[in-house]
Amino acid sequence: MGTDVNKVNLAEKFALFSEHWTPKIIAELNDYQIKIVKVEGDFVWHDHSDTDEFFFVIEGTLFIEFENETMELNTGELHVVPKGVQHRPYALEECKVMLIEPRGVVNTGEAESNLTASNDVWI
Amino acid sequence: MGTDVNKVNLAEKFALFSEHWTPKIIAELNDYQIKIVKVEGDFVWHDHSDTDEFFFVIEGTLFIEFENETMELNTGELHVVPKGVQHRPYALEECKVMLIEPRGVVNTGEAESNLTASNDVWI
Repeated sequence: MGTDVNKVNLAEKFALFSEHWTPKIIAELNDYQIKIVKVEGDFVWHDHSDTDEFFFVIEGTLFIEFENETMELNTGELHVVPKGVQHRPYALEECKVMLIEPRGVVNTGEAESNLTASNDVWI
Repeated sequence: MGTDVNKVNLAEKFALFSEHWTPKIIAELNDYQIKIVKVEGDFVWHDHSDTDEFFFVIEGTLFIEFENETMELNTGELHVVPKGVQHRPYALEECKVMLIEPRGVVNTGEAESNLTASNDVWI
């Protein structure tokens, strides 16, 4: 957990991996985890029944599809998806995103998917 | 609380104010608040006995002085100050920072100061 006692450089952390849709933990804030993820292509429809989910676009464009609209988040834009709200993230080109969630949240929520990732990988 | 159902553009939010050391809430994540602040000059020594504190430098250079060292955080770098750790932020030139803390945290912690700001201002 050395990342908690030193500064974290986002660009350096993003340079350490290339795979998509696999969030990596970079810091912890009480019982919350700060994660980074590279995304490209389609994710699955899902929700998190017990927590909001924070998306902050570090570089690129992230779309979040909701039941009645699609939100476009560009570099420097963020959104908090409220708990229980079905959403589907996707990106037309690779996009770098910061996520913040309580420790232990699964990326696909209640949805079973081959995109379900381990939720305890530090980088 | 309209900021929770719409996207938040950081640059647009930072353009709405000019004063220093007065965090503004831009979003909520469960019982946590995402805040932005412009800082320049010296802050006071303080700690938060019951919570970690997240600093993410959006633009500029933030120094955080600890008992035995001073950390330099540049654009794109972040650090989580553990609960109970005395620290003193300062900036030689204006610096834009994102903070994340539980709702209700006072910026100066236990320290009394004329830099103590309201902790419930949305922007």
